[in-house]
Amino acid sequence: MNLAYKILSAKLKSGELVAGQQIGIQIDQTLTQDSTGTMAYLQLEAMGIEHVAVEKAVAYIDHNMLQTGFENMDDHEFIRSVAKKHGITFSKPGNGVCHQLQLENFAKPGKTLVGSDSHTPTCGAMGMIAIGAGGLDVAVAMATGTYYLQCPSVVKVNLVGKKAKWASAKDVILYILQQLSVKGGVNKIIEYTGEGLKELSLTDRATICNMGAELGATTSVFPTDEITKEYLIQQGREEDYVELKADEDATYDEEITVDLSKLVPLTAKPHSPDAVVPVSELRGMKINQIVIGSCTNSSLPDMLKAAKILKGRRVATHVSLVIAPGSSSILAMLSKCGALADMIASGARILECGCGPCIGMGQAPLSKGVSLRTINRNFKGRSGTNDASVYLVSPEVAALSAIKGYLTDEFEDDMYLDDIENTPFVKNKNFFIDEYDPQNEVYMGPNIKPVPRGDKLPDTFKGKVCLKVGDNISTDHIVPSDSKLLPYRSNVPHLAKFSFCKVDDQFYNRCIENGGGFIVGGDNYGQGSSREHAALVPNYLKIKAIFAISFARIHRSNLINNGILPLVINQKDYDFFNDQDEYELINLLDSVESNKDITVINKTNNQTITAKLKLSSREKTMIQYGGLLNAIKELGGDF
Amino acid sequence: MNLAYKILSAKLKSGELVAGQQIGIQIDQTLTQDSTGTMAYLQLEAMGIEHVAVEKAVAYIDHNMLQTGFENMDDHEFIRSVAKKHGITFSKPGNGVCHQLQLENFAKPGKTLVGSDSHTPTCGAMGMIAIGAGGLDVAVAMATGTYYLQCPSVVKVNLVGKKAKWASAKDVILYILQQLSVKGGVNKIIEYTGEGLKELSLTDRATICNMGAELGATTSVFPTDEITKEYLIQQGREEDYVELKADEDATYDEEITVDLSKLVPLTAKPHSPDAVVPVSELRGMKINQIVIGSCTNSSLPDMLKAAKILKGRRVATHVSLVIAPGSSSILAMLSKCGALADMIASGARILECGCGPCIGMGQAPLSKGVSLRTINRNFKGRSGTNDASVYLVSPEVAALSAIKGYLTDEFEDDMYLDDIENTPFVKNKNFFIDEYDPQNEVYMGPNIKPVPRGDKLPDTFKGKVCLKVGDNISTDHIVPSDSKLLPYRSNVPHLAKFSFCKVDDQFYNRCIENGGGFIVGGDNYGQGSSREHAALVPNYLKIKAIFAISFARIHRSNLINNGILPLVINQKDYDFFNDQDEYELINLLDSVESNKDITVINKTNNQTITAKLKLSSREKTMIQYGGLLNAIKELGGDF
Repeated sequence: MNLAYKILSAKLKSGELVAGQQIGIQIDQTLTQDSTGTMAYLQLEAMGIEHVAVEKAVAYIDHNMLQTGFENMDDHEFIRSVAKKHGITFSKPGNGVCHQLQLENFAKPGKTLVGSDSHTPTCGAMGMIAIGAGGLDVAVAMATGTYYLQCPSVVKVNLVGKKAKWASAKDVILYILQQLSVKGGVNKIIEYTGEGLKELSLTDRATICNMGAELGATTSVFPTDEITKEYLIQQGREEDYVELKADEDATYDEEITVDLSKLVPLTAKPHSPDAVVPVSELRGMKINQIVIGSCTNSSLPDMLKAAKILKGRRVATHVSLVIAPGSSSILAMLSKCGALADMIASGARILECGCGPCIGMGQAPLSKGVSLRTINRNFKGRSGTNDASVYLVSPEVAALSAIKGYLTDEFEDDMYLDDIENTPFVKNKNFFIDEYDPQNEVYMGPNIKPVPRGDKLPDTFKGKVCLKVGDNISTDHIVPSDSKLLPYRSNVPHLAKFSFCKVDDQFYNRCIENGGGFIVGGDNYGQGSSREHAALVPNYLKIKAIFAISFARIHRSNLINNGILPLVINQKDYDFFNDQDEYELINLLDSVESNKDITVINKTNNQTITAKLKLSSREKTMIQYGGLLNAIKELGGDF
Repeated sequence: MNLAYKILSAKLKSGELVAGQQIGIQIDQTLTQDSTGTMAYLQLEAMGIEHVAVEKAVAYIDHNMLQTGFENMDDHEFIRSVAKKHGITFSKPGNGVCHQLQLENFAKPGKTLVGSDSHTPTCGAMGMIAIGAGGLDVAVAMATGTYYLQCPSVVKVNLVGKKAKWASAKDVILYILQQLSVKGGVNKIIEYTGEGLKELSLTDRATICNMGAELGATTSVFPTDEITKEYLIQQGREEDYVELKADEDATYDEEITVDLSKLVPLTAKPHSPDAVVPVSELRGMKINQIVIGSCTNSSLPDMLKAAKILKGRRVATHVSLVIAPGSSSILAMLSKCGALADMIASGARILECGCGPCIGMGQAPLSKGVSLRTINRNFKGRSGTNDASVYLVSPEVAALSAIKGYLTDEFEDDMYLDDIENTPFVKNKNFFIDEYDPQNEVYMGPNIKPVPRGDKLPDTFKGKVCLKVGDNISTDHIVPSDSKLLPYRSNVPHLAKFSFCKVDDQFYNRCIENGGGFIVGGDNYGQGSSREHAALVPNYLKIKAIFAISFARIHRSNLINNGILPLVINQKDYDFFNDQDEYELINLLDSVESNKDITVINKTNNQTITAKLKLSSREKTMIQYGGLLNAIKELGGDF
């Protein structure tokens, strides 16, 4: 058995471990961040539980920390009050990025984690099955201890060779993205193995698992070994160590090999994490801004490597270099060891520990600017500047390029950090709040609006196409995640006004005018973040079905959770749809119940096509009741 | 002679040192920050000079650092390009707050400084005449080396007694604000003297001079002494020391005494810096948020005092404590000495060095929240949350209250920092850029719009009252300075739409509808910041005159610079104005030329009053030409 299935089988509560089947697994840990967390906790509140049903639930604040209006702190206070009421650990703003903190403080080999953030797989570095999900799925996991998913297949990544000197963990995952593309991992677990494992520190592995999300993978996982154990000792948690690995004769559905000795510094060009080329191809490109940080590359070793390059040197006068350490502990350690002072002395700006620029919360580049970032996604406009070009690189390339003022991988020998001391980790316990009081009153600011609910499935549904888009539409397109909109994540009616605004600014008006209807997409519709707002908003706008050639995993679940039909169409039927005609879905009740293809009629010319909707029994129930929350209300959490 | 007049007389270029007379003084240094700087540099560009005419001109970036859209970094790049073209030192974002940096790096006894920020008087701590002014005045000073102002009278503040243990510099200035009110310093210089001087460190003096701006004072000034010299030695600038003090028999226009031994910790209640009461009166008030930082209280000693209180203790679980050190040097020193790690360990959030929350750039409190801040102004809504209550306190009271979770001054003995080591100051030279190239191309982002120009003075002007407001209207009312609008400081047409929006959201529409007209105000109209946008916007909206019972100094200058008539009316004539009738100013050409009272006719009922407009000869020229920029174009900079 491979490692992924070993862990899954130990946690299996329902279904069979057969790729494509629905399974229910026991969840040990949950995490939320604040931009998805407000909705998740509104939904948890609606379920009426007392104490959460998992070993450890943590509510992080790491997204909305600029606080440019009352909305953010209201949300923080709401989440703090819910956490206190239900026995959830609250991580105060300033403590750092959820994934980094979860890894440092709570990740344990063999455990399961679901989190309302697409980069939850980061903790796969610790030999966990850690999965990103919509907020409602996380709320259900908190309430019931169970999470349902389509059993993934498993891809073996065989790591061989001694890592090339200036190749980094970032280059490993960029290389894999180059090979597999942003949809290469859908419904798959990426399992790492091979002699090359020993070349990768625990935080290197975290970088790789983190950015496995960009493959569309369900999650990524590493076995545990001495390196894992060392990390846990450093964190004062040696007792959490368990040795975990695949059987010698484990089988996999696919296999690829990465030769670490042949890796070179890579960069993902605008506007996709899989548009990967060697840095050397773009040497000399002038850079305006450089960002080092995010859940992908903000660990202590990453920061120390950057500091080593910056030490005694000067950031180019035309470059704005910003650095955001991943956690308050890392900031404190950087401070104590002098690396922070080295960074500052070079001319680097030190931002608060948090997600910040990665999610467009500040540090938007200048118009048509070039920004080099160690983050995980470079979707168009995500930086806050629509015409900026964002390139993804390792912290080493970022730091070197900051000094030079242009993109380069021509390192000097003395820039290499040979050894990172395994000093005891400084823990900042004062940012974590554990105050359980079932009587605690929930605080609700004026910006917090109710969760939209869907209607029960009708037998027929008629409507127009409110929007037709192409391939690889991300949740950033559906509900933009910029500094102006992130504060409204608990206010769906407000968010709705900006849905698809960067694609077609008439989408909202058209939905209102048409009274809802359909969206038509291409391949890999809904890629990117786990935000369920990309389904809550269409639900609010009365979008009943989305036709697409294929769907990203988390988004498909979010749609079903919201009672929206994710209908798969053939490539050739994409042209069947236009924005003029009226379309009708017929025999929905029977088709959904029997997993039959759905008939779609163009009412104007009476042409028909069929669309596929293969649902698990649980998914059927959700669709029939008009969403998961409705279903839970009627049937209880473990229906 | 008092110290203020000693320095002024050494720099006098025109006029006589008689309170109320217009004088022109030689300017040695200028500073701008980015939110007023873009306009100042657009105006400088319009003057067509080559190298600036002052010893030291510095362009700081400290306001717009959240960068939630392309506008901020475009502005930074614009300012950097202009700085390079004209021989101005550019201080990169992340270097810190302009006043703190100016003090550390460039302030010199006996020199003069004008800055496009109302807290420019901070450097008065160094025995300088440092004055806040509108951007255009600063641009003229850069171009010509001269600044024109109404010669102020001088108030002597006699410091006596040994400072009470927990009283701080903040309490000195809060006490004076309590005594004199927010308009008590208009057209005055506050000069400190007495045996109590030795109780105040140089950064204490900077706090006091800084917040002298809240008195409406032209500036504040301290003599120099061993304490000044020690500070300069610490900064590696001993050679800049000059001993300066008032003559033994110096005369003053007014005198007040502050007994430092009787001071207690004070707080300014919402929503005015002069609503001062002892902290003890409000002990136990629950606090949601605490901010330590801003140009008022972000020096190394302030930070170390706060760190000492926080060390080994925990920020209350319901409190969000944010700390923003004043400069990158201070951050580096806090890091090196371990104080930063102590702060972080307590649960404090560390923000980037900059103005941040003080100007509403982030960290808006929750709805109806209570925020304790070490900043200088607590005007309604300035925090970013309109219904929040902001209390101004010292760093010590802030840190103690953070631990307790409520407002208190009940310190424990071991919280007292006895001695602050005079270690050499760490300088971060890499944030300062000196790259002079007269051929440098100026970068203009799409958000940078032309400076509005006024029309030549007509002989009659007819219009309606577009807005009638009460006393103490601040520039925050006229042009709000929140995180949503600050990025538009180089875009007057956009800003105009939000003018007075917190007072009357129809102001803009009324101006458009009426084609301009008048504003009527009460006492102390235009208090607060130096932003000339509060005059540029009315200029753009074709407001030709403002009737008020009295005007704040900087704002009055900004109005005249924009060709707008600041007309002083009697209290009894306030009711003469309503928003229905049409009013006419007649014989303007003659009245302005001869400094005669201006006749105002209500055209509906034919009643008349007169309004006063006393202008210096230079001011007359500006009004006649429709503004300073027009006058310079026609007559040259030193007309």
